[in-house]
Amino acid sequence: MPEHLASKSDKIGLPPGTPVFVGEQRSDEIKMQVIDYGESVFDHRTVDDVKALFPYRDKSTISWINIDGLHDVDLVQGLCQHFEIHPLVIEDILSPQQRPKIEVFDQYLYIVFKMLNYQNEEIVSEQISLILGKTFVITFQEVPGDIFDSLRERIEKGRGRIRKNQSDYLAYSIMDVVIDHYFLVLESLGDEIESLEENVLNNPQESFLEDLYYLRHRLIYMRKATWPLREVVSTLQRGELTFIKKSTLRFIGDLYDHIAQVIDTVETNREMVSSILDVYLSMMSNKMNEIMKVLTIIATIFIPLSFLAGVYGMNFDMNAGPFNMPELSYKYGYLIFWGISLLTGGGLVFFFRRKKWL
Amino acid sequence: MPEHLASKSDKIGLPPGTPVFVGEQRSDEIKMQVIDYGESVFDHRTVDDVKALFPYRDKSTISWINIDGLHDVDLVQGLCQHFEIHPLVIEDILSPQQRPKIEVFDQYLYIVFKMLNYQNEEIVSEQISLILGKTFVITFQEVPGDIFDSLRERIEKGRGRIRKNQSDYLAYSIMDVVIDHYFLVLESLGDEIESLEENVLNNPQESFLEDLYYLRHRLIYMRKATWPLREVVSTLQRGELTFIKKSTLRFIGDLYDHIAQVIDTVETNREMVSSILDVYLSMMSNKMNEIMKVLTIIATIFIPLSFLAGVYGMNFDMNAGPFNMPELSYKYGYLIFWGISLLTGGGLVFFFRRKKWL
Amino acid sequence: MPEHLASKSDKIGLPPGTPVFVGEQRSDEIKMQVIDYGESVFDHRTVDDVKALFPYRDKSTISWINIDGLHDVDLVQGLCQHFEIHPLVIEDILSPQQRPKIEVFDQYLYIVFKMLNYQNEEIVSEQISLILGKTFVITFQEVPGDIFDSLRERIEKGRGRIRKNQSDYLAYSIMDVVIDHYFLVLESLGDEIESLEENVLNNPQESFLEDLYYLRHRLIYMRKATWPLREVVSTLQRGELTFIKKSTLRFIGDLYDHIAQVIDTVETNREMVSSILDVYLSMMSNKMNEIMKVLTIIATIFIPLSFLAGVYGMNFDMNAGPFNMPELSYKYGYLIFWGISLLTGGGLVFFFRRKKWL
Amino acid sequence: MPEHLASKSDKIGLPPGTPVFVGEQRSDEIKMQVIDYGESVFDHRTVDDVKALFPYRDKSTISWINIDGLHDVDLVQGLCQHFEIHPLVIEDILSPQQRPKIEVFDQYLYIVFKMLNYQNEEIVSEQISLILGKTFVITFQEVPGDIFDSLRERIEKGRGRIRKNQSDYLAYSIMDVVIDHYFLVLESLGDEIESLEENVLNNPQESFLEDLYYLRHRLIYMRKATWPLREVVSTLQRGELTFIKKSTLRFIGDLYDHIAQVIDTVETNREMVSSILDVYLSMMSNKMNEIMKVLTIIATIFIPLSFLAGVYGMNFDMNAGPFNMPELSYKYGYLIFWGISLLTGGGLVFFFRRKKWL
Amino acid sequence: MPEHLASKSDKIGLPPGTPVFVGEQRSDEIKMQVIDYGESVFDHRTVDDVKALFPYRDKSTISWINIDGLHDVDLVQGLCQHFEIHPLVIEDILSPQQRPKIEVFDQYLYIVFKMLNYQNEEIVSEQISLILGKTFVITFQEVPGDIFDSLRERIEKGRGRIRKNQSDYLAYSIMDVVIDHYFLVLESLGDEIESLEENVLNNPQESFLEDLYYLRHRLIYMRKATWPLREVVSTLQRGELTFIKKSTLRFIGDLYDHIAQVIDTVETNREMVSSILDVYLSMMSNKMNEIMKVLTIIATIFIPLSFLAGVYGMNFDMNAGPFNMPELSYKYGYLIFWGISLLTGGGLVFFFRRKKWL
Repeated sequence: MPEHLASKSDKIGLPPGTPVFVGEQRSDEIKMQVIDYGESVFDHRTVDDVKALFPYRDKSTISWINIDGLHDVDLVQGLCQHFEIHPLVIEDILSPQQRPKIEVFDQYLYIVFKMLNYQNEEIVSEQISLILGKTFVITFQEVPGDIFDSLRERIEKGRGRIRKNQSDYLAYSIMDVVIDHYFLVLESLGDEIESLEENVLNNPQESFLEDLYYLRHRLIYMRKATWPLREVVSTLQRGELTFIKKSTLRFIGDLYDHIAQVIDTVETNREMVSSILDVYLSMMSNKMNEIMKVLTIIATIFIPLSFLAGVYGMNFDMNAGPFNMPELSYKYGYLIFWGISLLTGGGLVFFFRRKKWL
Repeated sequence: MPEHLASKSDKIGLPPGTPVFVGEQRSDEIKMQVIDYGESVFDHRTVDDVKALFPYRDKSTISWINIDGLHDVDLVQGLCQHFEIHPLVIEDILSPQQRPKIEVFDQYLYIVFKMLNYQNEEIVSEQISLILGKTFVITFQEVPGDIFDSLRERIEKGRGRIRKNQSDYLAYSIMDVVIDHYFLVLESLGDEIESLEENVLNNPQESFLEDLYYLRHRLIYMRKATWPLREVVSTLQRGELTFIKKSTLRFIGDLYDHIAQVIDTVETNREMVSSILDVYLSMMSNKMNEIMKVLTIIATIFIPLSFLAGVYGMNFDMNAGPFNMPELSYKYGYLIFWGISLLTGGGLVFFFRRKKWL
Repeated sequence: MPEHLASKSDKIGLPPGTPVFVGEQRSDEIKMQVIDYGESVFDHRTVDDVKALFPYRDKSTISWINIDGLHDVDLVQGLCQHFEIHPLVIEDILSPQQRPKIEVFDQYLYIVFKMLNYQNEEIVSEQISLILGKTFVITFQEVPGDIFDSLRERIEKGRGRIRKNQSDYLAYSIMDVVIDHYFLVLESLGDEIESLEENVLNNPQESFLEDLYYLRHRLIYMRKATWPLREVVSTLQRGELTFIKKSTLRFIGDLYDHIAQVIDTVETNREMVSSILDVYLSMMSNKMNEIMKVLTIIATIFIPLSFLAGVYGMNFDMNAGPFNMPELSYKYGYLIFWGISLLTGGGLVFFFRRKKWL
Repeated sequence: MPEHLASKSDKIGLPPGTPVFVGEQRSDEIKMQVIDYGESVFDHRTVDDVKALFPYRDKSTISWINIDGLHDVDLVQGLCQHFEIHPLVIEDILSPQQRPKIEVFDQYLYIVFKMLNYQNEEIVSEQISLILGKTFVITFQEVPGDIFDSLRERIEKGRGRIRKNQSDYLAYSIMDVVIDHYFLVLESLGDEIESLEENVLNNPQESFLEDLYYLRHRLIYMRKATWPLREVVSTLQRGELTFIKKSTLRFIGDLYDHIAQVIDTVETNREMVSSILDVYLSMMSNKMNEIMKVLTIIATIFIPLSFLAGVYGMNFDMNAGPFNMPELSYKYGYLIFWGISLLTGGGLVFFFRRKKWL
Repeated sequence: MPEHLASKSDKIGLPPGTPVFVGEQRSDEIKMQVIDYGESVFDHRTVDDVKALFPYRDKSTISWINIDGLHDVDLVQGLCQHFEIHPLVIEDILSPQQRPKIEVFDQYLYIVFKMLNYQNEEIVSEQISLILGKTFVITFQEVPGDIFDSLRERIEKGRGRIRKNQSDYLAYSIMDVVIDHYFLVLESLGDEIESLEENVLNNPQESFLEDLYYLRHRLIYMRKATWPLREVVSTLQRGELTFIKKSTLRFIGDLYDHIAQVIDTVETNREMVSSILDVYLSMMSNKMNEIMKVLTIIATIFIPLSFLAGVYGMNFDMNAGPFNMPELSYKYGYLIFWGISLLTGGGLVFFFRRKKWL
């Protein structure tokens, strides 16, 4: 996050709408793919020159242009300007730490949201910008990935409703794939919570606190990424956007339910994590009590007895007078000593038993 | 829950609306029952072939079709397609981890909610899908159960208003039976809370923390299952749905009150559980204080005395000079030693009394 | 509460609207009173037969029928059916664990709320059902009580506005009496909080935690009983109900203020109770620190000295060599020992002083 | 507060609208002042007889009648009845524990709010009732005070806008003076918080917990007094009241901002107090750790050594066999003992160093 | 903050709208700059006399008047009166502790918000008042600063859209610069949180609690400064203000997103800080447990053994009878003693191992 903020701060002083890429710089080339399809046509190609994408703006078939990589500002800007995208949107596309949001323009919708992946106990987040026009959808990703492969195959093979629908359905399908991935992340988080749960109810390990802390961290992050998305989908669902056909609304409603479920689960997880922490703290406190009990019992029994033993180890001169340690010369003195010791010890044990410490 | 998420993730990449059963696979057969009734007719039969259910779509009498088991995807899909149910709904019926929700279609309503049961200190949850058409109600359950037996009997015997009303009243009656069962679960949870309460105010048992943890767990779960239901019933109650007759609205209002009461009680229980935890932690802390007090009193009294006894057990050579332990040859040395010991001990006891430690 | 839930669960399987009394069974007879009055007429009688109450439905004077006791289901049902009360309302009247609510019907309003009393440090709650018709008010109570005596006297003596107003003002007056009693309960709770407060800032007693726990309990209960009532009165106040005259609205507004004040005070009390608990825990922690300090000071001073005394109590053979405990034969050995002891002790006392432990 | 509740409960059973003074009884006389002014006229007098105030109702100049003291019920009632105030309002004026609120009547507005003062580390609260008519403002205070002196002077000297405006501006000015005093209280609370803050980060004093507790108390109280006032002013500001001129609305908006700032500051203070408590508890916990460390280090080093010294103080008969304490006759036995002691002690110190306990 | 409140209280008694500067008094002169520009004209000058600014009110070009310093009340008032600013606004401009707010007048908008800077681990806040008229923008700052230099340069060089737009775009640009600075503050806070995080997961330093406390402080402050700003921008964005052109609305929407992101991050940071505190407290508790374990193990092993050694150091007279310490004369007595000691010690070590304390 500091990375993001740092980069944000680099832009201070520039006029708003200035296209600057504020993510991590990469050297690899930007990958441009286009899928063009109608009910009976299908074409999938990778292009090298951004100009090759320009004609798709005005084709009557549905075109899905996917740009992997944002570090070539000129390319992104060139494409966007041809598609008549607002400069502020271009700026947002190039700033990969946007809050999920939707912006409505006359000729297109701009939607930005997060792709989440769970790798090595970390949530890896990537910003996806989606521009939905009448006959085209443009998506921008920072890093090339394969999550849309199944969707591409579905389009190619003409499976499902996708080939019979318009660009709004394509946009829906893209978001659906992304939100479906949230469940994978939740699944991993759920596994972690379960393992922490077991951990705490048995013997907590050294790393417990650290694990818990980072889990909370991830849940905070997850919430930050999903909460605003609910509003985004809710805006789509309201049925006031000319781009969204009525038949697609039902599917977007389904999307909304999925997000609601994701958010629900995140909140539930947060509560469970905090109740795991409560249990942990109580356990620590219990353990301390147990330790203290052992110490107290041993000390309470033996400290007075040690004193007694110390007394009869004193060297008062018995010849100096009859009151100086006459016990030492008693015939049964030693036995009496042990008797007193055992009685005292036994009495204390009895006392602790009654206090339920033993 | 991870089961559910896992299963959700299995579907990633499939087109939306693809009917896949994502619950636990079973081998037992699906049970199909239909009750067909009007004010004066009544028919109850179990069918083997799903096609036998098709005619009930267009009958003018009220038909209640109940499907126990979802693992035969073809069967469910066949039935739904005949009744012209939207593919997304079919998908939802087959995914048994939906959030409670209502979806309004022109020809029917789709309502999904949870049947909760309390078995062996666990909340067992089962999804019930309900499709309310003009003259029919279809319910889907995962596991066969007997909770609707009393309702069936009521229909058969013509008790109550049910035979005189339409399908909306039947749907209400089904939901009413389910929500009434929530009170049974709350009752069990209430008993558990009471036993934890007694437990903590007397001597907490070993398993206290674990019990408390799982109780909180169940309350979180219960809340997750009931909160969205309030909105579902509130949608039904708003009186804008053509399927719901005005006379039924009053009953749905009653349903709403019941859910509100369930949610109220869940929230109250959550607060009580958290206040039980507070008491527990305070008790632990008190107990620790008590233990420490005993240790401190004993140690504080006897450690200085032991030192004194140690001193007079030293072997300084009295012949080396007059300053070497002359006390040992005092006539009353030993008595003076005891006097000092008792005075010191008594003084400390007095000190502790004043500090209210004793 | 479990009682209530248990009873609720007894009804599972019965058709909705079945009149079953789910409270505690009693053997005493039901008491039926009616007060009939107009600006110049007044009549107060106790009747034995429910049929004697029937004529009051159609009298033009204002009639207040009060039923003490709900265990005679037939009686209640008979009365209600004559007054054309909806079966669901009858069911609610007989279930004495309703949430406070209002239901609006064409011919009458049904309002249910709680009478709260504070007896022996317990909140005793009783459900009052009120049916407000054009010329009559029917109230149902579980247990006979005298809280309405002053109101009856006011009607009889013609004090205040009551004789000049309609049934809506009577209903308001009844609710006003009940809500005024909430202040008595709050007063008792306030006293308890104050005594806990004093308790904690002086020396907390044994029963402190238990008292606090039950106090929180009562506040949770109180909140549950009063929150929904605000909505009830707010519905009355909205001025859309044909039964409520405009002149009465001002009085209902006053009622609303009272409830708002009750809720405010309950919330304030909850916060104060939780801040008392915080103080208590901090005090416990302080006390523990103090105890530990005493132990540590004593132990830290005397344990090293005891070791030293132990050293010179060892029996190494001084004849075996010149290095074996030569100190014992020093002329001032014993004095030097005391010197070291006092220096060490004093040094530690100084150290503790600087650490502000002493 | 219990006072208030107690007094509230004294009224139970009386008809609503019965004027009873439920505050503290006083013997001093009620002070009645009237200021009558227009753009060019000004008159300020103190009257003895309430009847002298009656003519001001119908004068076209602006009249501000101020009543200090509420214990003469007849006087207050007489005045109010002449000004045709609703009986419920009279009752509210006489009950000095109202929640801040506004009530709108055709001929006047009734506003009640709290005057807060900070005296001797206590918030002293006094209820001010304000009746705003077309040409008059009546204010009721419990206790005579001088907070309005500056306002009176402003009217007399014709400073500011007040002489050119109507009664609504006078009412605004009165409220403005009162709300400005809230900042004085906040200032004092802010000072207290700062001193607690310093206190906790240095060495907390004995009275810290008590101070914190009472501070929280005062903040709870302050919030209770100011939250509802926001709604009151917001009602005034809505511009729907015929009494409020459009030019005054701007000033009332300013009032609203002030209250919002007061509430903001109260909330911020509450958060800071709770974060001070967190720090305090952590500090206590740290201190305990430190104490325990000292004890543990000393005990861990010397207890084993004491055992060793004890061993060589045993009196086993060396003549009984060669295995009985031969060490005692070693030539370097004593030195070896010290060697072992120093090594053990040093080793433990090293161990604690590595654990960062030293 | 007490400074501010103190100053606020100094104004009590003055008529509302009285211009008094309630900030810190300074001796340096007030700096007045004006930038006057149109699409093709640009003029930037610093003026000495406030009267030189008066002509800019009616010029058709866009004028940005910036006043650095508020301590010359007459100057500020003179300027504002010429521009026909409402007296309450003048009062607000001069009170540098306003809550962020917007006020809409017929001829201008008044917006007040905070400039935040992070210097030496402190958030330095300065109030900026902005008056947006048809052809002019006036900004008031307390302290001269250089944050608007880049904006001035942009205007001068004609970069971006600014020269082609109206005064509303200028006002937007000014707010944009300020809000962009919030990210710099967030960045610094994020760094601090990260360092606290590392700190707590490794070995917490002495100053940890203090650092955490002040960090929370800063986050509370930051929230107080940004929350109300969201409403301000939301008012601007609503599109009902005649001053804001439709083309600018899109940019203001962008502003809104930025603030939403700032608030989001503040909230996330607050949660993270509180979860860091949880970890810290748990760590403390763990550490205490570890310390106690060491003490308990050592004490439990050696205290009983010391007693045993003490026993055989007693001086019971073996000649007085055969029962007096016969062990001392056993041939292997000493060895047996060691044997018992080692067995006991070993047994306890085994016991602690099984309890997982070692």
